[in-house]
Amino acid sequence: MSKPLRTAAALPFLLFALAGAAPDPAGRLRDAALEGDKVAWDIVEDLTTEVGPRLAGTEAEARARDWAVKRLKALGFRNVHVEGATMATWVRGAETAEIVAPFPQRLVLAALGGSGATPPEGLTAEVVGFDSLDDLKAAPADAVRGRIVFVGHAMRPNQDGSGYGYYGPVRRSAPAVAARKGAAAVVIRSLGTDYHRNPHTGLTTWGEVAPIPAAALSLPDAENLQRMLKRAPKVTMHLTLTPRFVGDTATGNVVAEVPGTDPSAGTILIGGHLDSWDLGTGAIDDAAGVAITAAAAKAVMEAGRPRRTIRVIWFGDEETGGAGSKAYFAAHKGENVVFVAESDFGADRIWRFVPGFAPAGKPLADRIAAALFPLGINRGTGEVEAGADLGAWVKAGVAGADLSQDGTRYFDYHHTPDDTLDKVDPAQLRQNVAAWTAMLWHVANAREDIARVPAAPAAP
Amino acid sequence: MSKPLRTAAALPFLLFALAGAAPDPAGRLRDAALEGDKVAWDIVEDLTTEVGPRLAGTEAEARARDWAVKRLKALGFRNVHVEGATMATWVRGAETAEIVAPFPQRLVLAALGGSGATPPEGLTAEVVGFDSLDDLKAAPADAVRGRIVFVGHAMRPNQDGSGYGYYGPVRRSAPAVAARKGAAAVVIRSLGTDYHRNPHTGLTTWGEVAPIPAAALSLPDAENLQRMLKRAPKVTMHLTLTPRFVGDTATGNVVAEVPGTDPSAGTILIGGHLDSWDLGTGAIDDAAGVAITAAAAKAVMEAGRPRRTIRVIWFGDEETGGAGSKAYFAAHKGENVVFVAESDFGADRIWRFVPGFAPAGKPLADRIAAALFPLGINRGTGEVEAGADLGAWVKAGVAGADLSQDGTRYFDYHHTPDDTLDKVDPAQLRQNVAAWTAMLWHVANAREDIARVPAAPAAP
Repeated sequence: MSKPLRTAAALPFLLFALAGAAPDPAGRLRDAALEGDKVAWDIVEDLTTEVGPRLAGTEAEARARDWAVKRLKALGFRNVHVEGATMATWVRGAETAEIVAPFPQRLVLAALGGSGATPPEGLTAEVVGFDSLDDLKAAPADAVRGRIVFVGHAMRPNQDGSGYGYYGPVRRSAPAVAARKGAAAVVIRSLGTDYHRNPHTGLTTWGEVAPIPAAALSLPDAENLQRMLKRAPKVTMHLTLTPRFVGDTATGNVVAEVPGTDPSAGTILIGGHLDSWDLGTGAIDDAAGVAITAAAAKAVMEAGRPRRTIRVIWFGDEETGGAGSKAYFAAHKGENVVFVAESDFGADRIWRFVPGFAPAGKPLADRIAAALFPLGINRGTGEVEAGADLGAWVKAGVAGADLSQDGTRYFDYHHTPDDTLDKVDPAQLRQNVAAWTAMLWHVANAREDIARVPAAPAAP
Repeated sequence: MSKPLRTAAALPFLLFALAGAAPDPAGRLRDAALEGDKVAWDIVEDLTTEVGPRLAGTEAEARARDWAVKRLKALGFRNVHVEGATMATWVRGAETAEIVAPFPQRLVLAALGGSGATPPEGLTAEVVGFDSLDDLKAAPADAVRGRIVFVGHAMRPNQDGSGYGYYGPVRRSAPAVAARKGAAAVVIRSLGTDYHRNPHTGLTTWGEVAPIPAAALSLPDAENLQRMLKRAPKVTMHLTLTPRFVGDTATGNVVAEVPGTDPSAGTILIGGHLDSWDLGTGAIDDAAGVAITAAAAKAVMEAGRPRRTIRVIWFGDEETGGAGSKAYFAAHKGENVVFVAESDFGADRIWRFVPGFAPAGKPLADRIAAALFPLGINRGTGEVEAGADLGAWVKAGVAGADLSQDGTRYFDYHHTPDDTLDKVDPAQLRQNVAAWTAMLWHVANAREDIARVPAAPAAP
């Protein structure tokens, strides 16, 4: 293979090129997964069909946990159990918006997680528009007080998904900025890259300020509102959002193990999150991630008992504050965990492997990179993130790796009603399982110790 | 130009190829429109922004008429006026659906135009699924009675849009078929080709049977329901639909003219429909059509007074029963109308010209075809349809023509919340205006008479 794998259409050719090759166990498992894994697809299909949306802290998440325990046991994992935690749970209510004047029409929006509520009958106020979060920050409070703030901060797609960090503050911080200036409510242009009438929800954070009503408009609606603001001196909106906090309820992490032969070699943690936002069925976010990691662990398990114990964790609350991962880290940080990796960026093809080992881990990283090369995965450098659920372990010095998925279309669907099964490409999903299986086999069976990673000097 | 124009990206090259050409008036007007028409875009942008959705018979359609009169006068047309009609008007209410058992989750749907209502609190019933309308027709009434019927009839995209006729009965007829067998309600897979959580509404017809609640599921929801029906012996749904008929209200056709020099040469009718479904802002259906035809008429007008009067009609109610066109034909069928053409299939490029003249009209058809060739438009044969608003004139023997637009992506957006401005490609919209302008100039200025078309022998 002289070129990276670019599209799912290339997969049959790849299989052909590999036919008869792969004398090593990792390579054999990789090729078998690439050709025929069904475990991951079945998890995604069944979870989205039989449970669907599973907002953290709700009875739907509880049903998902029951489903998960049953499935992980059926797959042959050991020590399958739930580790519970409690969380402050927020649920969506009514959500409508109409332009009252001068151009009456409805706009499509969705409350952001943590949003405050309007009165049940809604509120009516003038809209004041800003092109970016910086413009809102620079505005005097007088321009904002008592008004509905609109922020039209436009996100663009990137393969590496880095736009989520760069553009993300418009969702995470703009509502609090507007609240501190006395805004009546805030509506943002969705943090997303598609042009469908499907708004992108997601968590917003308030710090010390009391929550105000906060929602995201779909991109067509946001651009319509921008046009109205350009052509009229005063635009008035009627907004109704009635979400509420329902108090402390249960979330939980579902844990399953592949026991290793050598307890002194340490434990590997992999996984994704079982909860999802409430608008879609959580296929790409993150049924795919729990499916990919479990399918890889099962493939390694079936090839023979590995040296290290592999622990698959399907985390509870990730989306609405991270109660699941926080509880897990607090309870287990004293254990001998030697490697972590997380899958939480959809199901499109993996294009990059970023190893995060101590210097002595270079031979292991080399073996993994060589096993991933036939899948069209290049070796990258830089800081490993692991993700929201396992990142705390990396920060604490545990070795890890990122298998970066193509994010070009991820933010077309992320946190929208459109996050449904049909957005998952079976061929690319299998490439994910193949890559995870190869990496996991090498890490689980490495004969050398896997050392902690010395802290890097702080970036300037 | 040796190849047809395939994409909007090819337009700059086309312009380059034409530079300095076009000694004839139609060619000059065509090239000017292709390069720089702004009239059509402004109509689409302004109508969707300043009025938005404009369901026939509602106050929104009345605002659209006021807007239209103002705009057509500002463009310089003569004799701008409204011809009113009355219609039985249907409006949407609440619409929600949840699977109660065995896999509780919400499904996204929209009531079909003319749907009956459930009680305000909804109804709960078992779902019985059919893969096609024919399967539903073949089912015994016992299998349907008291149940919610689901029909999973799948539409596929075609360039010529012919799938709307072939697959359309699932929306137009399945609800009545289910009602006659005693169904409690009916939900169909949307008559559409996209995979977004945006259902496709549209008219359903009941004949003599009393309306029952009838709605369309988005494609992801329809496929989710199909999976549920495959894996569970009994699926129960709670459905709430509260649309209602509000009685007789006003619709109206907005008419504008370019007066001709020779009243004996007859009148040309062109246009599209001003009303839209209520879910989107009606950009492609049919702000584009009223915009394209008006922009072409204005271009011909500005080149000098034509021989024939051009009458631009922005029809009232097309979507919910056709009260607009019926009233117009009834009032004007005695006039000397010699040619009709309609634009009601979005704003993507025109790929085919189908002339519908009497045999003596061949030289005129040849001149039009030659003027359209540089735009990448091939000459087709077959029956001219004109469309829902002007088709009655063709059936009555008036000459006409179809400028067929590319429909490959039309049914991704048709009758959904996603029918918004961003779906219109400005370059392809200009190609439409260019084609219409060239055709209209030739028809309006033809020195020969334009004869009535003898009836074709009936098809077998």
